[in-house]
Amino acid sequence: MAANEFTEPHRVVYYEADDTGHLTLAMLIDLFVLVSENQNAALGLTTEFVQSHGVGWVVTQYHIQVTQLPAIGDQVTLKTRATSFNKYFAYREYWLLDAEGNQLAYAEGIWVTMSYATRKIAAIPAEVMTPYESEPSVRLPRLPRPDRLPAETTLADKPYTVRYFDIDENGHVNNAHYFEWMLDALPADFLRQHQPTDIRIRYENEVTYGRQVTSDYVQPDDALVSQHAIYSGDVLAAKATIQWQAR
Amino acid sequence: MAANEFTEPHRVVYYEADDTGHLTLAMLIDLFVLVSENQNAALGLTTEFVQSHGVGWVVTQYHIQVTQLPAIGDQVTLKTRATSFNKYFAYREYWLLDAEGNQLAYAEGIWVTMSYATRKIAAIPAEVMTPYESEPSVRLPRLPRPDRLPAETTLADKPYTVRYFDIDENGHVNNAHYFEWMLDALPADFLRQHQPTDIRIRYENEVTYGRQVTSDYVQPDDALVSQHAIYSGDVLAAKATIQWQAR
Repeated sequence: MAANEFTEPHRVVYYEADDTGHLTLAMLIDLFVLVSENQNAALGLTTEFVQSHGVGWVVTQYHIQVTQLPAIGDQVTLKTRATSFNKYFAYREYWLLDAEGNQLAYAEGIWVTMSYATRKIAAIPAEVMTPYESEPSVRLPRLPRPDRLPAETTLADKPYTVRYFDIDENGHVNNAHYFEWMLDALPADFLRQHQPTDIRIRYENEVTYGRQVTSDYVQPDDALVSQHAIYSGDVLAAKATIQWQAR
Repeated sequence: MAANEFTEPHRVVYYEADDTGHLTLAMLIDLFVLVSENQNAALGLTTEFVQSHGVGWVVTQYHIQVTQLPAIGDQVTLKTRATSFNKYFAYREYWLLDAEGNQLAYAEGIWVTMSYATRKIAAIPAEVMTPYESEPSVRLPRLPRPDRLPAETTLADKPYTVRYFDIDENGHVNNAHYFEWMLDALPADFLRQHQPTDIRIRYENEVTYGRQVTSDYVQPDDALVSQHAIYSGDVLAAKATIQWQAR
């Protein structure tokens, strides 16, 4: 039996776009999470229902492939499927399609349920998984990881302080905000002239309100790839590798 | 002849809300600007058309009154009207209504056209104003200003650096982001337990990419009012007075 799919229409609006008029990467993630939340709600899996089992969904890894970021006013379709799962991990896919059904972006995510009591990974409660009709699977697809950097790599860094509005209902920085810190560290002119095409990100540790983080990055000259790490003190919060192409 | 009105439906989604699940003030402004942009587009007044006259719309002042901020999942209606104008200023009104048509929020704004050549106020081109069928008026409504503070007032301050994603198509910080700086400076627990009910804000000078700003604020003990100023160096960028009530 194939897992349930869920789709919804969306129109890209001005505050979802950067100053080139294209959807931002952070907003792309917001929209992918939105369509999965709307699937959840349609299946009766509201945030309150999930929380009533003492857990919240937390993403640990994404692999995102972008063909073309849509522009303000574009009518798009968001689509998702909770494809498969095992005791601790759930594998979810996401699609962004244009008005003709062409793929603009595709993402895979690995999600876990975090216990609110211990703030550690807990076995996924059956009640929050069954309604998707996903495939139980011992071995889930393995997403490509961010690059391992040579030990001598020197990264530039830019400081950020976690804001109240960065925090979500799980009491930590929402995963989309990491992209704002990672990308904002790069030069504005580079961001204007390039779009991300392939993003591998791993979330290692949660970051809470008021913390100071650094957005570390390195981008070799002439290379259309950037390496990123977010640190909260000495603790690695997330790392990512992003490939770019000229717009 | 009364000015054209424009309405559109909207459903509040998770990334528009804070960790209490309510629409943020910055998002309320984004939605009000969105409905006015959609009115513009419906009247053929696209950003490109306005820019072809060498100008962009810039807000100088808002007065916002909030009865109740909607929650995630709420179906609301956005409504706007470009009520009246004179040579240099346009007066616009905004409404946020619940599913039964009850008013959740109301705002008034004073807008000007900024010349891209001089970055100063320019006379409003007739071509960008006529389609609204607004009332020409020598004297526009005067919005209440932020409070004048006693000279000896000491304000706390919190630093922010302007991010690439804060910049809009006018090449400066979008007006909604000022609310993120102003509100984030207040304690998280206060923000969780209170909602803004009356906001008076004046935008004095634009802020551009990469600038360091300070969000200055004072909130007298036990007073449900906060005073705010955003400075870019010695230059006042915006000031505001916000009244609050317990949620």
